[in-house]
Order: sequence, then structure tokens, then C-alpha cells
Amino acid sequence: MKNITDIKKSLEKIGLKSQNASKVLINLSTAQKNKALISIANEIKKDSKNILNNNKKDINNAKIKNLSVPLIDRLMLNEQRIKDMVDGVRAIEKLSDPVGKEIKKWKRPNGLKISQIRVPIGVIGIIYESRPNVTADASALSLKSGNTIILRGGSESFYSSNAIVKSIRKGLRKTAVPVECVQMINTIDRKAVDVLLSMNNYIDLIIPRGGKSLVAKIQTNSKIPTLSHLDGLCHTYIDTDADIKKAVGISTNAKMRRTGICGATETLLCHKDVKRTILPEVINNLSSAGCEIRGDKEVKKLSKVIISANERDWSTEYLDSIISVKIVSNVNEAITHIEKYGSNHTDSIITENNKTAELFLEKVNSAIVLHNASTQYADGGEFGMGAEMGIATGKLHARGPVGLEQLTTYKYQIRGKGQVRP
Amino acid sequence: MKNITDIKKSLEKIGLKSQNASKVLINLSTAQKNKALISIANEIKKDSKNILNNNKKDINNAKIKNLSVPLIDRLMLNEQRIKDMVDGVRAIEKLSDPVGKEIKKWKRPNGLKISQIRVPIGVIGIIYESRPNVTADASALSLKSGNTIILRGGSESFYSSNAIVKSIRKGLRKTAVPVECVQMINTIDRKAVDVLLSMNNYIDLIIPRGGKSLVAKIQTNSKIPTLSHLDGLCHTYIDTDADIKKAVGISTNAKMRRTGICGATETLLCHKDVKRTILPEVINNLSSAGCEIRGDKEVKKLSKVIISANERDWSTEYLDSIISVKIVSNVNEAITHIEKYGSNHTDSIITENNKTAELFLEKVNSAIVLHNASTQYADGGEFGMGAEMGIATGKLHARGPVGLEQLTTYKYQIRGKGQVRP
Repeated sequence: MKNITDIKKSLEKIGLKSQNASKVLINLSTAQKNKALISIANEIKKDSKNILNNNKKDINNAKIKNLSVPLIDRLMLNEQRIKDMVDGVRAIEKLSDPVGKEIKKWKRPNGLKISQIRVPIGVIGIIYESRPNVTADASALSLKSGNTIILRGGSESFYSSNAIVKSIRKGLRKTAVPVECVQMINTIDRKAVDVLLSMNNYIDLIIPRGGKSLVAKIQTNSKIPTLSHLDGLCHTYIDTDADIKKAVGISTNAKMRRTGICGATETLLCHKDVKRTILPEVINNLSSAGCEIRGDKEVKKLSKVIISANERDWSTEYLDSIISVKIVSNVNEAITHIEKYGSNHTDSIITENNKTAELFLEKVNSAIVLHNASTQYADGGEFGMGAEMGIATGKLHARGPVGLEQLTTYKYQIRGKGQVRP
Repeated sequence: MKNITDIKKSLEKIGLKSQNASKVLINLSTAQKNKALISIANEIKKDSKNILNNNKKDINNAKIKNLSVPLIDRLMLNEQRIKDMVDGVRAIEKLSDPVGKEIKKWKRPNGLKISQIRVPIGVIGIIYESRPNVTADASALSLKSGNTIILRGGSESFYSSNAIVKSIRKGLRKTAVPVECVQMINTIDRKAVDVLLSMNNYIDLIIPRGGKSLVAKIQTNSKIPTLSHLDGLCHTYIDTDADIKKAVGISTNAKMRRTGICGATETLLCHKDVKRTILPEVINNLSSAGCEIRGDKEVKKLSKVIISANERDWSTEYLDSIISVKIVSNVNEAITHIEKYGSNHTDSIITENNKTAELFLEKVNSAIVLHNASTQYADGGEFGMGAEMGIATGKLHARGPVGLEQLTTYKYQIRGKGQVRP
């Protein structure tokens, strides 16, 4: 453990280096950035043995600490996972560079021509869970969008992440991108996070990832703007005009494809008029897929497998094979329920009635609203953005998937002929 | 003075009302919002006598407190200023409503159609200086962009602002817009600001206005995202290929049109090759307009009126009739100087050489970069945005003028045909 003054000094050095590197990176071309990404991918591949050896140290430590099997699995690397990481970096190289793109242009009556142009944000700090691949993904996304990055990985993945960063920096050394564009904080001391969150002179954006309570704490304590994910309480509403096949298919996919992701449906709302026609088949399908059903009074009558839902269920993000089911009188009651209990993340309506669908798409004020599609589409890759830093649940700057474009800001270029302001 | 528990209770009530009102406002049409704005304008006009009487109380208190003449002038209302305020609200009614506009749309290979649509942010808290007209401007901008607002005005304008809010709410009562869309915090206790900044359950965005140290403090302490203005250290660079007439006209306008605004030029950079041809005339013109000139060694030689600039001058935002002047060897040195000392706000190049101009426009990473135009164009009105909440100097969400569009966020509407995620 270092004392706080030492940590501050060391982090300020990192911050200053990152800021200086940012001034170089911001002016590099797409080709130069792409070359660096290819070089990074190559070095990670070449160094896979070293990365795996370091990963073994993390895994051993995790076993000594008695970490749970899922946590150890998340931490573990193997040949295939390193290949996926390398492919991930290469995929980011292929993505279109948002920097320099014109968002809008217009001309003023006085002749001034105004263009709004995408530019990098600057310096990004990322605080993330013990998931080694994030080290490579986040670094590649930052570089491609013209931002430098300061990494603070989870302590359990300390050796793996450091080995990956070493390869990344080896890759950068051969290119025009300054090696200081990717830096890692080399202490697992938690005080370093507090220091990082106070460095608003150097860092432009903090991206916290990981457990909800940690993210909430970082959001609250950060003196730097944050982009992050909190709650994902998603709904699927089966309308009276729903197609039964779509209702069954979408509900089961929305809940059970992967239960632990933020876009997984947690509550199913069903129009009263189809509770005896469509709902039984939906419940049957979910139940067969291994899902626990918690229903309101009316739903409970439908089957013995259904457990009674209580008030708390409507505001619970299970992230598990459990779904709460409620009967509503109409689409407006569904919208009101979503407004009251939802988290403005992702919500879907299943209906063949376009008017009802459009009402739902307009009135539900979530980051993502869908008609006849699974809530599990809440994902940058599925949007066609390529890799993403995560999903943002705030309302400022970016909402939903945070891809390359969301890692940029803009500037105005104004071209005149000697105009002065009256 | 109330105790902190009472303040918390009372502010939470305000927050909850604002959040509930937001859920209604978000779904109102442009026509409904416009009607409310017209009604507000009418009521302010009708109530002008009451507003002026209350303003007199504020002015008397200010005189007792021995406030400075400019502060009292800023505080003072008269018939004309009330007319301007009414016209301001009417002008916002005429602006195009950003809510519901499609930013982008695309189709995925799986057939999903994705639209990105502008939506209101929700609840805005504004903490502002003792400038009564901001009460009306900020309320009108919020309503038009579909946001509810919680106002916390400067203590010196307490009676004026309250009278204006009373008229606004009288106006709203006659319309579909809930009266709780505009609320004012009815205590001048400073603890109320701390409470406000912690209410991230109710408020989506804080806009702090006023003195730099106050804004910086709010930015740092807020648990809610902020949009605000800090430094405006703007530069005008006279290139070797500058047109002398443009150089003289733009420099003088950029510095002297109004010296106290954020877009006023503080430092003039001049190419060494035109220091004896263009610069003397520029300095002469500035000096005749009443500007103090602080030059580096070489500049000082040009005239006896010039005072020696020291290192500190390059990083000083005078907001006064003072300008610092420095000779640079070329456009790159100008860019480097701006990068080192500037605040990334607004910077201009004067040149007839388009290549040099484009280099400057690309490399200077400020929110606004101009070619052959005055830095005083850094203004939402001059951009054609209509009224603005202010200029944002941060990089997240909005950069530069904060108008109606910058007071919105977005959501994704996805239209499918039963797609489930593989």
C-alpha cells in the first residue's frame, strides 16, 4: 500500500502523459490509427504465451481467494479467448472512423458558413471488472475514436491485464500512435480510484463498469463526467392484437437467450383479452425453457407452476431465469406500468396493430423501444455499431450502446469573409 | 434560515412534482407547448406593474447592501426590459421544436429498422445569477424542449424572479402544460443548492450560471450531470497572408465590441512577417478604441503606448479593455500557443491563404474555430439557434451554444417483424 500523496503523484504523471499523447493522437489520420490497431493485434497474438502465463497467476490467486466459479470463468483466458480478443481488435480496425465527419452544416444570412464536425473527447479513464479482454477492447475503441485511455482493471485480473497492456504498448511503439495513449494504473490500491475520479484537469470522461453498487458509487463521487450502466429492468408487452407465434418466440428469447444481460426482459405484461389464448402458450414455453414464473392473481390461476408475484417483483431486475407476469387492461396501462417500474432501458411491444405499436414506440420513454422484436437486441453489435464500451443508462451525451461515435464530441468550424458582429 | 431536513423535504417535494409534470409534458404536442409560451408572454406583459414593484424591492435591498453599479444595472428592470423579456419568450415560441425529430435511421441485415429520435432530457435544475430575465428565458427554453425546470435564482433578484415565476405559472394554468413544469426554490438559504445538487433521483441536468468560481464549485460538487461555462480565453491570429482591412476590423470587433462576454478575444497572435505592416495599424485601432495593449518584447518596440506582457498575461481572461499581443513565427506556433494557453473555447485566424486557414480550423481543438470572422460570433443567436441557455465549455453532451437541440437527448425506436436474437 502506498500513501495517498504517492498515489496522487504517480496518477498525475499518468494524467499529464495521457493529455500530451492526446494532443498528438487527435491529429493522426485514420490510416495511422488503423496501422496501430493491426500492430496491437499482432503483438497480442505473438505474446499469447506470456499473457496465458500471467493469467495463470491470476487464476491461482483467485482460487486461493475462493472466488466463485463464474468469476473464475470470467477471468480465465485460453488460446480461443485470446484469438477472440485479437479478432475484436481487428474488427475495430475495420469500423468507420467517426472523427472528422460532418454532422451538420448551414449558412447564416450574413454569409458565415458553419460546419459541425466530430472530434475525439480527449482522455478517457475506464474502471472495469476483472475481465481481461476489456483491456484490449477498450484500448482499441479509444484509439480508433482518437481518445487516449487510462485503464484501471479489477484487482483479480491484475497480471493478465498488465500483460495485455504490455503487448498493446509494444504494438504502439512500432507506429505513429504515442505509446502513452494506453496506460494502466499499476496499483491495486483502491485509493487510486478516488484519486482518478478527482483528476478533472486531465481526464475528460470516466467509464465505470462492473457491479451496480460500484458503478453507482463512482457516478456519485466522480468530479469527471461519466458514461455508465445502472439498471436494466426491461419489459415485453403482449398486446391484444399480438401474433401468438411472435409472442411465444420473442418472450422466450427476450427472457431466456441470456438471462444475465441488461437487455433481458424481467417483466411480461399481457393484455387481458389474450390471457387465455396467447399467454398460456407463452408461459408454457418459458417454463419448459426452465424459467420460474411469478404471476399476479389472474396469471396465477392459469397454471400450478406459477408462483405469486408481490409488489417487489415489478421492480426487481432478476438477471436470472425468473420472470414476473402481469395482466393489464390495455396498452396505456402497460405504458403506465413501464413508466412506474421500468428503468428506461429497453421495452418491447408485440402486436400486429401498427397504431398500437406506434403509440407504444412514442410514449414509452426508454433508450430503446421495440415493436415485434426481442429486448435482447439492446446491444451495439446488433445495432451495427461494432464493438461497444457498454450501454449507457444516463440521458446526457449518449443513451444506449456506447460505440465509436458516442466516444466523440464535436466542434464548429466557421468560414467567413471578414464578418464582424454588429 | 431553515434546517437542512426541512430544506431537503421541501426540495424533494419540488423534485417529485417536477418529475411527474415531466411525464405529462414529454407527451404534449408542439402546438400545446407553443400555446403555453404565448400565454406566459401575455401574463408577464399584463403583470409588468407587479414585476416592476417587486424589482424595486430588490433594487432597494441591493442599494442597502452597497452592490456595485454594474450589478444593480444587471438586476434592474424597466418597461423596455420587460418588453424584451416578453419578446424573448415569443421568439422561443417561433423556434422549431427539436422533440420528435429523426436524427438518423438505418436498416439492419436482419430487417430491423432503427430510428434515432430526439426526446426531452426530463427535469432541468438551473442555478443562476441575479439577472431577472433569465427566469423567463430559461423557463421558456425548457418548456419548448419538453423539459420541466426547477429555478434557483440569485438572492439579490429574489422578489423580481418570484414575481416573474408567478406570472409564468398564471400563464400555464390556462393551458395543457402542467403548472409544476416551472417551479422556483423559495429560500435564499445556500444549503438549498447543496441539496439540489444531490437530487439525482429527480433531476437529470444541472445548469449552473454566474461567476466562474461558483460554477466550478457546482460542477465539482454536483452528483447530477452539468452543462456550464468556465473559461473563455479566446485568440485571434493574424497570419502573414492576412488582409489588413479584415485584420483591423476583426481584431477590434473581437476584443472591443463587448469586452465582458466569453467570446471576446483576450490574446492577439501575429505572424512575424506582418508585425511592421499590419500589426501597427491593428494596435493603433485597438488603442484608439480605448484598449490597453500588453505586448511581448518585439511588440513593445512598436509603440510607446504598449505595456510589457508577462507570462501570466497569456493565461489571463481579462474580460476588460485589455489585450495581450504576441509575435509568432508561423501558424504552427500560433496553434501551439493556443493549445498551451487557450481554453478550447473560440479562436479565429485571419488570412487570405485557404490552406493555412484549413490547417488552423482542423488543428485548433476548440469548440468554435473561425476563419476571417470575429470571435464574438460565439453565440447561439448568431449560430441561428435562437435563444440559448449559455455556452458550454465541457466536452460531453453539448459544446458551445446550448439551445433547444442541446436540451434534448435521444431514444431508439426499432421496428421488427418478430425477430429474435440468435
